Amino acid sequence: MKQLKGIMPPIATPFVNDEVAFDKLAENFSRWNKTGLSGYVVMGSNGESVFLMRDEKLKLVEAVKKNMSEEKLLIAGTGSDSIRETISLSNDAADRGADYALILTPSFYKSEMKPVAYIKYFTAVADKTKIPVIIYNVPKFTGVDIESETVAKLSEHKNIVGIKNSSENIRQTTEMIDQTPKEFATIIGTASVLYSGLSAGAVGGILALANIAPNECVQIQKFVEEGKHSEALELQNKMLPVNKAITAKYGVAGLKAAMDMLGYFGGEPRAPLSVLNDADTEQLKQILVNAKLI
Amino acid sequence: MKQLKGIMPPIATPFVNDEVAFDKLAENFSRWNKTGLSGYVVMGSNGESVFLMRDEKLKLVEAVKKNMSEEKLLIAGTGSDSIRETISLSNDAADRGADYALILTPSFYKSEMKPVAYIKYFTAVADKTKIPVIIYNVPKFTGVDIESETVAKLSEHKNIVGIKNSSENIRQTTEMIDQTPKEFATIIGTASVLYSGLSAGAVGGILALANIAPNECVQIQKFVEEGKHSEALELQNKMLPVNKAITAKYGVAGLKAAMDMLGYFGGEPRAPLSVLNDADTEQLKQILVNAKLI
Amino acid sequence: MKQLKGIMPPIATPFVNDEVAFDKLAENFSRWNKTGLSGYVVMGSNGESVFLMRDEKLKLVEAVKKNMSEEKLLIAGTGSDSIRETISLSNDAADRGADYALILTPSFYKSEMKPVAYIKYFTAVADKTKIPVIIYNVPKFTGVDIESETVAKLSEHKNIVGIKNSSENIRQTTEMIDQTPKEFATIIGTASVLYSGLSAGAVGGILALANIAPNECVQIQKFVEEGKHSEALELQNKMLPVNKAITAKYGVAGLKAAMDMLGYFGGEPRAPLSVLNDADTEQLKQILVNAKLI
Amino acid sequence: MKQLKGIMPPIATPFVNDEVAFDKLAENFSRWNKTGLSGYVVMGSNGESVFLMRDEKLKLVEAVKKNMSEEKLLIAGTGSDSIRETISLSNDAADRGADYALILTPSFYKSEMKPVAYIKYFTAVADKTKIPVIIYNVPKFTGVDIESETVAKLSEHKNIVGIKNSSENIRQTTEMIDQTPKEFATIIGTASVLYSGLSAGAVGGILALANIAPNECVQIQKFVEEGKHSEALELQNKMLPVNKAITAKYGVAGLKAAMDMLGYFGGEPRAPLSVLNDADTEQLKQILVNAKLI
Repeated sequence: MKQLKGIMPPIATPFVNDEVAFDKLAENFSRWNKTGLSGYVVMGSNGESVFLMRDEKLKLVEAVKKNMSEEKLLIAGTGSDSIRETISLSNDAADRGADYALILTPSFYKSEMKPVAYIKYFTAVADKTKIPVIIYNVPKFTGVDIESETVAKLSEHKNIVGIKNSSENIRQTTEMIDQTPKEFATIIGTASVLYSGLSAGAVGGILALANIAPNECVQIQKFVEEGKHSEALELQNKMLPVNKAITAKYGVAGLKAAMDMLGYFGGEPRAPLSVLNDADTEQLKQILVNAKLI
Repeated sequence: MKQLKGIMPPIATPFVNDEVAFDKLAENFSRWNKTGLSGYVVMGSNGESVFLMRDEKLKLVEAVKKNMSEEKLLIAGTGSDSIRETISLSNDAADRGADYALILTPSFYKSEMKPVAYIKYFTAVADKTKIPVIIYNVPKFTGVDIESETVAKLSEHKNIVGIKNSSENIRQTTEMIDQTPKEFATIIGTASVLYSGLSAGAVGGILALANIAPNECVQIQKFVEEGKHSEALELQNKMLPVNKAITAKYGVAGLKAAMDMLGYFGGEPRAPLSVLNDADTEQLKQILVNAKLI
Repeated sequence: MKQLKGIMPPIATPFVNDEVAFDKLAENFSRWNKTGLSGYVVMGSNGESVFLMRDEKLKLVEAVKKNMSEEKLLIAGTGSDSIRETISLSNDAADRGADYALILTPSFYKSEMKPVAYIKYFTAVADKTKIPVIIYNVPKFTGVDIESETVAKLSEHKNIVGIKNSSENIRQTTEMIDQTPKEFATIIGTASVLYSGLSAGAVGGILALANIAPNECVQIQKFVEEGKHSEALELQNKMLPVNKAITAKYGVAGLKAAMDMLGYFGGEPRAPLSVLNDADTEQLKQILVNAKLI
Repeated sequence: MKQLKGIMPPIATPFVNDEVAFDKLAENFSRWNKTGLSGYVVMGSNGESVFLMRDEKLKLVEAVKKNMSEEKLLIAGTGSDSIRETISLSNDAADRGADYALILTPSFYKSEMKPVAYIKYFTAVADKTKIPVIIYNVPKFTGVDIESETVAKLSEHKNIVGIKNSSENIRQTTEMIDQTPKEFATIIGTASVLYSGLSAGAVGGILALANIAPNECVQIQKFVEEGKHSEALELQNKMLPVNKAITAKYGVAGLKAAMDMLGYFGGEPRAPLSVLNDADTEQLKQILVNAKLI
């Protein structure tokens, strides 16, 4: 099993005329493969996974597997509230080459999502999934939040090997790292706290920013590993406005516009999301210029 | 087209050994069919729709269609963030006899769910769905809320015919009624504000409570239609503790336990939900006794 | 003791050059006194109470008492997190003529504000306050919410005589009415749900809208009392856009601008609030025209 | 002016028979003065400031000033929504020896608390306050959140010299540090993210935990300053369960119970808060034992 660590982009899914554009995907990989990225996440939040049909998802996994460097990791986002469907989709993704399944916390019945429910859900899923499971906590999208005590209990399951925490709450991330075994991988889910997460012991990052600035993200981790804290912080801070622009500020549309500006194929998001308007595009460009990415 | 009005339960989905129990479903319908319910919602929030596989959903629509009285309405909950999948599932449900599609607001990218996104989503869905569309607003589960101005705009689409509002905010419901055409159906989504909703002009209710107390719910509407406001209020208030128990307090597990107590088949919810514990079951029973349902 | 019921405005506090303008206050009262308003609330949320010094507050109570019709009610908003200060201010207001003390739920330590804390707080306050206490629930400003079960317990205290509920959640209001004795007064705190609240059994309303449309608010209550539900609903709905403009949309600045447009003195809010800008003022005017208030 | 940096406790206010116990306060200071604490915050959130009368507050400032080591900093929490009262109280505290005024973001009219309002408020306050102003952001108590762009603008005012950020969102703290001048002091407001905050460039911490574990908090900062990141992280992590117990889990009552266990005077919180129950006290003790504080 390839080691779960390093910087990975939750890859944007390219669309042309509202259909998945596999040729554009291949072009993007031809660039990403040359970087120090340790792997890729397909069907993550930034991949507009919720807008894809089931068969589109599986074709996408196949295409990514075909286009990516063999030595890198492939993580597939396969979670939904249904335990059965999650197991089914995870195993279908595994059959197409996924190394790990990244599984969203269930979230529909929000007030019922207490520790006992999370434990029931992830245990049932991990028991029957062929590939190791990574828990995915992203409160801004799910409206629920899993706490470290629950993650600690789940980390005892031999097929639950890590968590991607996309919350900016570094107390929570620090507790997750502190309360789980050394071999359990805590991964930062947003570049906005990458330095802080890594310096608290996280082993990597799954970052929208890694779609457009893979080398910078990889370098931040390298700096931390070498004990160069101030260099890591400085580089992260240079990236903060860019990261905010392609996430909180402009969302997936912003990420895709930035990809287009930087030589990747971004294109339009699927409806009901909208392409960035002209004024926002101009502002985004300025942010990339300020960060010297353009 | 059957008229969209009256009281309808979002039917609980019966499971035995974690499989959909079609025989138990038939038993429940044999009782519901004898009441004044105007129709049924299959795959609603209380139907644990999010825990069902796609093929289970379609078999369920078929089974409901087979078991229900012909003159009643069949509404199928078919929405997800994906426009394509929503259209596809809605049309598959239509082919199996659904009269209307009840479609959840998209909600994953919460901060992007502005009026423009809702309009884009529901327009695209309604354009290609064979049966009329009912918007479904349920903030406690989706974490987003659609406001009346957006509903008013959507009500101009000829294939968008109503909204089920499960928010307890009656200001919002009142505005929806006030800002949409007379033929647009505003339906109350929780028995906790049934009287207030009906007296503000709503045409019916899709109510968890209607699974176990259909006659009482129907009677509340009848009272309002006859101008008997104090009788309607009094009956609703008698039901308030029961409704709270099977929704906010004990959730789907509570609804199913109450069904078992009242001669319907309830059974266990699917994981990750849990069956009610003994203490809560006892309390629930007392609440039903107090309301003279037992 | 004057009976606690009817429509009352939480009066806007007029400022000229950032000082309380007692002459303008008198002018406003000369008009309000001629209406069917049953009383006044001084130092309510719409009175910018939080921006007033303690001595300004007491002078304001005195001035209101002097200017108001003798037969009407005077309610003073006197609550803060401090039990001691709340008792002290309430009694000082009582000495200056206040009939009732309207007391905000404590809210600073939000996660500690459980039923036991509310009961401790209101019991301690009511025990030592010379005038009867009205609980004031306004989640949008306090960030906390008191539920009906707690209000029901507090209603047993002989010096706690009512609640003003400013939540738009009519389920909660209905439960408050249903679970408290008949002589306990539940008062609606926002015109957006006035009809629904009154038809559910509320005895009156403390409404920002009553500052500018006192007769309309009084008429809505009269209609409900006469069983003219559709007339009440129709009149309320005509007022909905106006009410939204002077509360949720434009806040206190909007209320004051509307007062200026309608022949009352509104003037500027105190910093850090800002006066309405020109575009918003124009929009507000149009809303008043549409509602035929201008 | 003494330099604004280092570790400071927001001191708990001791009560005996519900009155401020100045002798107990003196006892606590006799221990705190011997530590490496750089100063003290009086009337902070943990000091139950919201439960104190105005004259109690000023006597408390005097008492603290009398009991504290002269070389240490004295910061007074003096903010409220009222600009006038905030200036008045800040200057009264200054007259009694306070070096800095720690001023809560205004928060009553939550939806109006946009950048323009914060700028208006803090500019007006800082213009007329004799001592330098520190902004205090604590979303869990105020329900509002000030973003870094606004803090950056306010940092240009010569009498606004720092911010205490009690949010656990380290992205926000990092941006505050990054966007303000080097001489502007960003101070961490919760020990749960002390290491991460300091390693991101914060100059100190105002920490409930510093009431009971001053040396450990001071040591964490020392480690960071010496570049000993793993030692700092390890020590912080040892403190995490203790910090959670005296804040999120048991609140002020927990802090005071812990003080009693560790040789300080804690005593009872003021109503409506309650003293810790026996089961929680036992659990708290075990947490202190586990952290080797007992």
